[in-house]
Parts: sequence; structure tokens; C-alpha cells
Amino acid sequence: MATKAKIGVLGASGYTGGELVRVLLRHPRAEIVLLTAERSAGKAMRDVFPQFSPFALPQLVAIDGLDWGRVALDVAFCALPHATTQKVIKDLLARSPSTKVVDLSADFRLSDTAAYAKWYGHEHHAPELQKEAVYGLTEIHRREIKKARLVANPGCYTTCAQLPLIPLIKNKAIELDEIIVDAKSGMTGAGRAAKEAMLFSEVSEGFHAYGVGHHRHMAELDQEFSVAAGREVVVTFTPHLVPMNRGILSTIYVRGRRGWTPEDLHALLLKSYMKEPFVHILPFGETPHTRHVRGSNMTFIGMAKDRVPGRAIVVSALDNLVKGASGQAVQNMNLIMGWPETMGLEQVALFP
Amino acid sequence: MATKAKIGVLGASGYTGGELVRVLLRHPRAEIVLLTAERSAGKAMRDVFPQFSPFALPQLVAIDGLDWGRVALDVAFCALPHATTQKVIKDLLARSPSTKVVDLSADFRLSDTAAYAKWYGHEHHAPELQKEAVYGLTEIHRREIKKARLVANPGCYTTCAQLPLIPLIKNKAIELDEIIVDAKSGMTGAGRAAKEAMLFSEVSEGFHAYGVGHHRHMAELDQEFSVAAGREVVVTFTPHLVPMNRGILSTIYVRGRRGWTPEDLHALLLKSYMKEPFVHILPFGETPHTRHVRGSNMTFIGMAKDRVPGRAIVVSALDNLVKGASGQAVQNMNLIMGWPETMGLEQVALFP
Amino acid sequence: MATKAKIGVLGASGYTGGELVRVLLRHPRAEIVLLTAERSAGKAMRDVFPQFSPFALPQLVAIDGLDWGRVALDVAFCALPHATTQKVIKDLLARSPSTKVVDLSADFRLSDTAAYAKWYGHEHHAPELQKEAVYGLTEIHRREIKKARLVANPGCYTTCAQLPLIPLIKNKAIELDEIIVDAKSGMTGAGRAAKEAMLFSEVSEGFHAYGVGHHRHMAELDQEFSVAAGREVVVTFTPHLVPMNRGILSTIYVRGRRGWTPEDLHALLLKSYMKEPFVHILPFGETPHTRHVRGSNMTFIGMAKDRVPGRAIVVSALDNLVKGASGQAVQNMNLIMGWPETMGLEQVALFP
Amino acid sequence: MATKAKIGVLGASGYTGGELVRVLLRHPRAEIVLLTAERSAGKAMRDVFPQFSPFALPQLVAIDGLDWGRVALDVAFCALPHATTQKVIKDLLARSPSTKVVDLSADFRLSDTAAYAKWYGHEHHAPELQKEAVYGLTEIHRREIKKARLVANPGCYTTCAQLPLIPLIKNKAIELDEIIVDAKSGMTGAGRAAKEAMLFSEVSEGFHAYGVGHHRHMAELDQEFSVAAGREVVVTFTPHLVPMNRGILSTIYVRGRRGWTPEDLHALLLKSYMKEPFVHILPFGETPHTRHVRGSNMTFIGMAKDRVPGRAIVVSALDNLVKGASGQAVQNMNLIMGWPETMGLEQVALFP
Repeated sequence: MATKAKIGVLGASGYTGGELVRVLLRHPRAEIVLLTAERSAGKAMRDVFPQFSPFALPQLVAIDGLDWGRVALDVAFCALPHATTQKVIKDLLARSPSTKVVDLSADFRLSDTAAYAKWYGHEHHAPELQKEAVYGLTEIHRREIKKARLVANPGCYTTCAQLPLIPLIKNKAIELDEIIVDAKSGMTGAGRAAKEAMLFSEVSEGFHAYGVGHHRHMAELDQEFSVAAGREVVVTFTPHLVPMNRGILSTIYVRGRRGWTPEDLHALLLKSYMKEPFVHILPFGETPHTRHVRGSNMTFIGMAKDRVPGRAIVVSALDNLVKGASGQAVQNMNLIMGWPETMGLEQVALFP
Repeated sequence: MATKAKIGVLGASGYTGGELVRVLLRHPRAEIVLLTAERSAGKAMRDVFPQFSPFALPQLVAIDGLDWGRVALDVAFCALPHATTQKVIKDLLARSPSTKVVDLSADFRLSDTAAYAKWYGHEHHAPELQKEAVYGLTEIHRREIKKARLVANPGCYTTCAQLPLIPLIKNKAIELDEIIVDAKSGMTGAGRAAKEAMLFSEVSEGFHAYGVGHHRHMAELDQEFSVAAGREVVVTFTPHLVPMNRGILSTIYVRGRRGWTPEDLHALLLKSYMKEPFVHILPFGETPHTRHVRGSNMTFIGMAKDRVPGRAIVVSALDNLVKGASGQAVQNMNLIMGWPETMGLEQVALFP
Repeated sequence: MATKAKIGVLGASGYTGGELVRVLLRHPRAEIVLLTAERSAGKAMRDVFPQFSPFALPQLVAIDGLDWGRVALDVAFCALPHATTQKVIKDLLARSPSTKVVDLSADFRLSDTAAYAKWYGHEHHAPELQKEAVYGLTEIHRREIKKARLVANPGCYTTCAQLPLIPLIKNKAIELDEIIVDAKSGMTGAGRAAKEAMLFSEVSEGFHAYGVGHHRHMAELDQEFSVAAGREVVVTFTPHLVPMNRGILSTIYVRGRRGWTPEDLHALLLKSYMKEPFVHILPFGETPHTRHVRGSNMTFIGMAKDRVPGRAIVVSALDNLVKGASGQAVQNMNLIMGWPETMGLEQVALFP
Repeated sequence: MATKAKIGVLGASGYTGGELVRVLLRHPRAEIVLLTAERSAGKAMRDVFPQFSPFALPQLVAIDGLDWGRVALDVAFCALPHATTQKVIKDLLARSPSTKVVDLSADFRLSDTAAYAKWYGHEHHAPELQKEAVYGLTEIHRREIKKARLVANPGCYTTCAQLPLIPLIKNKAIELDEIIVDAKSGMTGAGRAAKEAMLFSEVSEGFHAYGVGHHRHMAELDQEFSVAAGREVVVTFTPHLVPMNRGILSTIYVRGRRGWTPEDLHALLLKSYMKEPFVHILPFGETPHTRHVRGSNMTFIGMAKDRVPGRAIVVSALDNLVKGASGQAVQNMNLIMGWPETMGLEQVALFP
């Protein structure tokens, strides 16, 4: 049997941390040797996630006391809050330069220091790492990710919008100034921090939009769409919250450019993702349900014709904790480590 | 005490029928004298809706054996399936011409016989009544409703989209060819018929679009928007299903015309609905939750500025069974009968 | 029109506070003149409960600065946290002795000072008021409540268990040492404080027991059952959390005493609650759903025969925020003020 | 690589059928060669379960035209409705006697022909197979299952109640006449047939008991408990429906016999299941959540002390579609085929 890599999950008590542990427990090349959690340091993983009760896992520890050189991780997954992340990763890589890092926060997603400062309101604490970091949308940046030491795993909303849109933009198939992304997310996307607005009774049996007209994931959309288009692209983006745990569905309104019909757009997506194990294009006219990708690393994408001539409606769905976070992070680790890209990610969606 | 009107609910075993009974039981001028249900004829109302167990209500009967002249209803609410409705109402009004009818089906909503035939695939069975019927969007057609004998109560999706859009269209404040309505509905909108796709386990913990590019409510939107605009208007409309019982939220993307800013559009809505008891415009930048109108006859409307210059995002929310169906039906009855418009509809939203 | 009473709701930003406002807004004799909320002082009620946006309501204020003599409330509803309550009510009644108080906390429910100290771990701060307080299970203590100045509104679990059990115990119809109450509650029973365990994603799509073997509501059960029995009664009680907002259902296992059959027990309940407007006994063999009392002040009770000879299964259901809290509180206010007991509480259950 | 066994799933369009396919798709020794579905015959599996869209699977066929000798299955999973099952399996085994059958219906669970006739109202169609069938509660009947040709997979409620109770009964540790099982199930337990009572809006936001005093799973409980006790045992059992997709939680009330304390009962369970991969006993006083076993083949069992002396409260939780149906079926196949018992069943629970 092949030797296993030493893996650490920083921020193991949150939802993306827990999801990393779920996937890594069954990954044939991974051995979890470090789990950190600031407020729960000293507890067992089963105390914060009872589903792991039957498994032997390291105790939760605080980051502060760690000697990264001694821990000598092969791979660190970083699921820490914004801003904290920059400092931790800077320190980790300084003391253990050969560790590979997949960061699930937003800290290294923007390559432009000015864009970062504008959206986050302060200078970046590790600008040299910001430059080094590779944007981890696997299907689009596979080549760079393979060689990366630090991967900035994309946001869940952005993965869901970029996978269908980037091929359409790159191929100049749609009008760049008429893209509207109406996105709907399950509640785990909001994290595990105890906030009144996230209580069951505030969320159940209702639906609402939030961050209307402004949301930080827009910065990532702008960056990647502009790179794909070769000019600045600004899309309309409205996130909503659905009373469900997992899943994002994006309903995307586009207009075909110079004679591109909805059928042509569909054919382009089919061709673009033909060989991808984790992107599945539905037959023309069918659109996906979030429930059919739940717990899996799949993205399902559908394309339908609008009755308004020239307009097409693209619908994409993924599990925000898997392809939208921890699954894609493991996919990126697999690439970096030279393992099969699908390793540990074979789980079929859990429906119902 | 004022005498009570004799009220019948045709189709009392479905969700809109049950909701009519809920509201009418506490309406000071209504006396429920007739409840019909084809498959449940012979049963008590408590057998199909146990919440009515403590109340004395007429037994459910089939329509077939009824002598409308003898029943002599003052008001008939018709919550029957499409097509059946036309025949029943034709018969009812032939034998009891002074009965007022509020129809909750789609049968009388389209005034154009050709449009009806196109969307529904057959000739209308009562074209003369189709002409007589008044479209029952109360706030817009109040004057005609007061004098009507037959009111076609609007659909739930259409009420939710028309209330915010009609003032904007009438005042030529928005571009008519760039209106996108992304609508999300709770499950009661799909009715009470036993279908696999509506089972709890098919719906819970997931989200999806349906009828993408084509949905019969579009016909109503077209009709009313075109009347308001004075020319043909065709909007993009995509419905989605939310794992919740009640509520519709419409996220509507518009572009201001000739210098109308989002703030101007908001001011216009505020002015249009200033005196309306059941339409509430939120402060600029705030958008509504469906949960905050649940069980009430209110529509909440919010307006926000998009970051794309010139574009505004309008969000409207209502309870599909109340303002989207039975509540508006009672509101229309109140108008027809000359009673205070809010009578029986004072219930405050039930949240959480 | 009759003059209105001046009403205050102390702790208006929690769920029972919000529910009181919902009911009182439509109560013909109530005028809300005071709303308090410590952390939200200075805000509008619509900021904490947007469903009240269309209504004119007093601004939220802190209790500290209030001069109770000047506020001169006719009725104060107290929906404050445990322990705080004792001090506030003591102060309020000292300065405004004619105000009637309905307290929704647990502070005045136990009449025995020793029992209080045992269950709550400290001496009571207002023992004289503890003696004065009347236990507010309306149907059982109606006579005392009418004359009370301070009513201790019962807990939601206790109301749901006591209504079916007290007549059976009083009439010596069941074995006192074999009562098991398996109770299931919706999430609003846990309050609105932001706790991780109450987040949507922690609660949705799952079910669990809590407080197994020990729960403070047991103290109230013990007290009232022992009074009814004339000797000490200790029942087994296990609460569970259901992923729903509102509702409590208690499945209660009892054994008939000396020849009492399940049918006899049912007849006894029917007779006991025959004239009660808010307690409805279902036909023998039928058991209730929480959804059929949602939003109403009703308790539905069913009785079925177990296949184990002599055993009966009683199932009771109520809305924990209405009959289990704010509705019963208003019912008690009506009694104290000499108004019709059902005033403002006529709302029919909201299903679906 | 080892050769794969040819597997058929009869009744693949229901929830247990779909779950079998989910598990088998990732089972290293299984090759799905046959999928049947009567009403959906001719469709693709993705038409009834879109989550399988990315996978190559056999088309759905009807059973009628099949030549079992030619199909020559190694293993047939039978997820067909009651009664149909008997005839199909009789026919299958007549023509293909070496096929191993794991039946998920109730048809072969009762070994006593009289008990069968009593609970199901008709004579069994294959009494000789009824005798041959082995009751498939893996942890209890492992030895017989290994040698079986036909395994009757237990019901979900029964698995959840029998795993904690059988060791207690066998060891004479609890009073046999005071066992009460209060069980709560998610909605997938009710199957996929389109029934009004199972619609989302009938189930969401509510809770209720059903089959109070009588439920067919009782027959299985009686049979296995009586075998374990060596005398007839009849327990009280009440099932309830929870608005969630997956999961069963049983709250079980027992009284220790002759000095057995709750701690002793806990120690007995710990010892009984020490080496079991799929039964996990929680530390004394902790009780499980269904969400922490979701999607996994685990059963979590907790034990707590009641405040009533001598009484203990046992709480067990499993996923009704996995350990309660398809997972245990695969576990049984593994035993029959001589494969590692956990093969294909390693999935960690999906929470949240």
C-alpha cells in the first residue's frame, strides 16, 4: 500500500472543516494528523461533530502553540475565517515551506492587491503569497494548480456561476453586458457561527434575498470573467437563502451574441465539459435540482431557450460544501499531489 | 347585527378552498352554507381538513346534484380545476343570475378568446362570460370589480409580479424589453393533487426551476403588462420551487428608462401604493422575506440599486394562498358586496 | 366603543413577545403602549420583527429607565429571561400596584420555595410574590385567575401534558406510577437566542431527544399532578426537538386504574372539556397533528387503545407559542379583566 | 481485480431501490446488470432518479418478460411491494435456484405461517420459502445469514428497536411487560407512492403519530423479542412521522430487572456491540441524533437514567434507507457472498 500523506485541517469545527474530514476519512492516500479549532481546542472531534464518534481522530488543538516545522504537514487545508487566514498561512509556509496549502477562505482569491483592498477594506497581510496563489477553479485552471504550492479554493457561489459562464465568455458566445445571475443557496453556506438570522425558526418556511446589489463574491466573478473575456465584465448577481442545508442553484440569464442560439450555447458547454468527471451537462431543455448533486462533487448544468428571442436560461447546481468547498479542495489536493483527480471523491449523490 | 351573506365554496377540499374557509369562518358578514368536493362528497370538512374539527360546517357535497336556483348563493367562490370551472359557472349563473362569482381558476383571466385558445389548447366553453369577467387584481382594477358579477381572481405568480411592475410600466419608467422575473414559490402553489413530484421527500432539502421558458401564468403577465404599456410586452419569467409551504418571492430585474433612477422607481411605488392597506413598500434598499407576510393578505415590495448602472432590482413577496389566492378573493368579494375592503382580512402575519 | 386597556409587553424582541404583539394588535380592548427589549432598545419593532412594518407601534425601550408609576400599565405581559423576571416584576408591582401581570417565564410557576430553590439553584428574589402568584393553566384554575393580580403562565410542555392528564388524575382513573410523557417540540420553544445548536443546519433534516431524565418543566408537572392526585406524583418525561417552527405533540402512555378502559378515559376527557372553547377532544381512536392547531389557541387531544391490555395512549397537540405561551397569556388577561375569554383569540389554525 | 457478481435490483424506482443503486455503484464486487420497474419500464434510471444521470446503468425493464435462468443473477435485491414479492421470488428461485435473494419487503420476515395470515389477512403464497428464509438482522443472525439463500431484510422500525433491545432481553436484564417503544421516522420510510398524506405541504411544519395501537412492524417485534426471551413478549409501539427525509429515532422506556441499573444496561450494550462495525454505543447519558448517522450504515445507541428509580431510557438512531433497508441488505449480501462485511458500506454520515 502506498504511504499516506500527512494532512492537517485548520478550522475543523466549522462546516467546511467537518466536510473535509468526512471526505478525507475515506481518502486512500490521506492521513489526518492535525485538526485545529480555536474555541473548541482540547475537545474531541466527536464533541463538535458527533457523526465522527466511531472514528479515531486527533484531538482538536489551537493553532497558536503549533510548531509548523515539527508538524511537517504534507498538505494543509485552511478553513479559517477571513483575515486570520493570511497570517496563519504566511507563518505556516515560512516555517514549513514544502507544505502544500489549499485555502478555503477568500483571502487569496483576488490576485489584484488593489481589488483586494477595495472589497475587504484593508491592505493584504501577505501580498507576496497573494501573487503566488493560484485560483483553484479546477476545471479552468488545472494546469497551474498542478504546480501550485498555495491554491485559493473558489467560493461556492462563484464556482456555480463560473463553470457554466466561463466557456460561454471565452468563446465570445454571449453578450457581456447582459449577464444576470440569480443565485439561491442552502444555509450551510452561511457558516456555523451562532447568529440570530441563521436560527432554524428565522430560516425555515421562508425565502429571501440578501446582499442585493453588493456581495463579496462579486469580486471573484469580476476577476475571472474579465480574464476570460479579455476586458472588464461586471455582472448582476443576487444571492438568496433557501431553507435547506446544502446546495446552490444559479439561474443565469444570457443573450447569445451574433447568432449564437441557445442550442449552440448548449453544444459549446457539452463540448467544453465532455471529459470532465465532475461537470455534467444535462440534455438541452432539462434543468438540474440541487438535491441530485447533494453530498457529491458533481456540478449539473442545464440550458433552456427563453421565449424572448435570443435569450437563453442556464441553470447550474452543486453542493456548496463539496464542489463548492471541501470536495473541490480535495480535488485540488489530488492534482497537486499527482494522485488521480477523482480519488476520494467518488461518492454518489444522496437523494432523497 | 347585519344580516349575513350566503356563501358557497366550490372545491373546498383543495388548499385554496381550505384557505377560503379559514378566512370566511371569521368574516363578520359571511355565512358558509355550501361546501363542494367531488371525490370527498359525503364527508365532513374535518375529514379533509382536521383543523376545522371544532367548527360547525356544512357537509361536503358534489356539484352535480345541486339546484343553483334553490341554493341561492349570494357569493360563490370557485376553486375548481381548469376547464371544469367554465361549465360550472356557466350553469350556476344561468340558474342563479344574481349570484356573484369570484373564480380562483385561470378560466376567466384571459379576455382574449384567441389568447385563451393558444395557451389552453381548446375553445372557451363560455365565451360570453369570458367577456363579462373582470380581472381581479384588486389594487389595479378596483373600480370595475365593484360593479362585477364575475371576477377572475389573478394567479399567485402574476399578482406578485404585477403589483410592483404595473405602476412602473404605466408610468413609462422602465425599459419594456428587459424585464426579467425570477420567481420562487412555496409548495402549496402546486395544489393538493397526489403527484410523485410533490411528495415531501422529493421536495425537501432541495431547490429547482421548472417550466423554464414556458408557463401558463405568462399569458396573464403578457395581457396585463401590454394593457398597462399600451403595446405588446413579453417578459422573461422563470418559476422555481422552494421547500416551504407558503410564499412567493419575485426577484425582478429592470432597467430605468430615460433617467429614471432606482430611487425614482422606489418613490413611484411608494406614491402608487400609499393608501393601499395590503401593499407595503419597504424603505429603499430593504427587500422582503416571504415569512413576514405568511398567513396575511399583505404584499411587501422592496427596491434596491444594482451595481450595474441604470439597473434596479425589485423584490416582492406575498402569501400565495392569501393575497395570491383566497385572501384577494375575499378582498374582491368585499368590494362587490359594498363591505369594507379589509373585512375579515385583518390577520397579522404569522412569524415565526 | 369601549375604552382600551394600556398594555405593555416586556421582552418584545423574543418569539413569545412577538407573538403577544401579533395577537394584541387585533384584540379589540388592547392598546399596546409599551414594548421593551434590552439589546434592541432604541430600535423600531419592525427592525426585530419585519412583519410589523405596516403597523404603528411604540419604539423598543430598555426597562431600566422606566418609571412604572408613570407608565401606569393596566396589564403587563412579562416575556423576560428567568431570574431577571423576579426583579422586574417586584419593582413594577411596588411602584404600580394596580397593574395586572401575566408572566410567561418560569419564575412564579412553583409555589413551593424549596422546590424553586432545588430546581433553579438559588433562593427566590420575591418569595412573597411567589406566594401570591396563581398558576395560569386557564381551564384548571379559571376561578383563581379571575381574581389574580399576578399570573404565572404555564410552560408549553406542561400545558400540553397537564390538559389531558389532570382530569384523569383527579378522577383517579389512571395508575399514578406508570405515566410516561414522550414530548416533541418545534424549535421556537427554544427561544430566539443565537446558539449554535439552534442553527438551521444543526436542526433541519434530523431529530433528537434532549434533557433526557432531567428537564426543568418536570417541576411544574410534579407540582400540578401532585395537587391533582392528593399525593406525590413523579412522571417520566422526555422532550425531543422536531425540525419545525411551531407545535408540541405529547404521546402519553397511561394504564387505566381498577377497570377504567381507554374508552372510559376518553369519555371522561370529553365530559371534562365539553364546554371549553380551546380544548377539543377528537373522536376515540383519532390522534391529532400539530399542524392542525398551528397559529391557533386550540389544544387537540386524542385517545387510543393500546394492544397491551389496560394501556391507553393519549396524544395532545398545541401551538407552543399560542396556547403554550402568548395565547394562553391573553386568555388569562381576558379573565382578569373581565372580558370574554376568547376575545382576540378567535384565529383559526393556519394549515397548510 | 476480482470478478464482479451480477446483481439485479427488482423495484429500482422506489426509494430503497434507488438507495441500493447508490451503494452498489461504488461496491467493488458488484456489477448492476438488471434494474426493474413496472410503471417506468422502458425509461432510463436517470428519468426516475436524475442523480444517476452521469452513470451508465441498465434500462429499466418490467419483470414479466424476464427469463430468470438466462439473466442468471448472482444476487437479486427485491424491493417490491408486499404480496407481489412472494410470487416473484418463488418464480425467480424456481428458474434460477442458485441466485441469492435479499428481500426488502415484509413478505418473508415472519416465520410462522399463522402469524403471517393474521397480520396480512391471507395465506402466504410461498410457505416453503417462508420456512427457508432467514431473518436478516445482521448483528443477531450473522451465522445463519452466511449460509442463507433467501434473506428477509428487517423493517426499519424493527431494526432500530431490536438492536438495543435484543441483548437486554436475552440477558434477562429488563422487565418484559413494561417495554414502550416511541418511534419517530423520516418520510422516506413511507415510500414513493403518490399519496395525498405524503405531499410536502401535508407533512412539512408539523408532527403526528399514526397507526397508534396497531402497526404491522409489531409482528416482527413480537417474533424476535419472543425468540430472544424464550416466552411471548408484546411491547407497546407508537410510530410518528417527522418532517425530514431520512432517519428513525426510537425512544425506548424500560425497567431494569432484579437490580439491573441503567449503568449495568449500558455496560451490557457496550459489551454486546464492542466489535460491531455498524453499531456504536454512546457514552452513558448521551443520546443520538438521526442526523449524525444520515447516509451511513451506522446505528447509534444511547442509554440514560430516568429520574423514576429503576427506569432507563434507551435511544437508538439509524438511517431508515441504509441500516434500516438497503445498507443492511448489502451487508447481508456481503455475508452471503463471503466478502468483507463492510465492503461498499464505508460511507461516513453526511452532516449537515
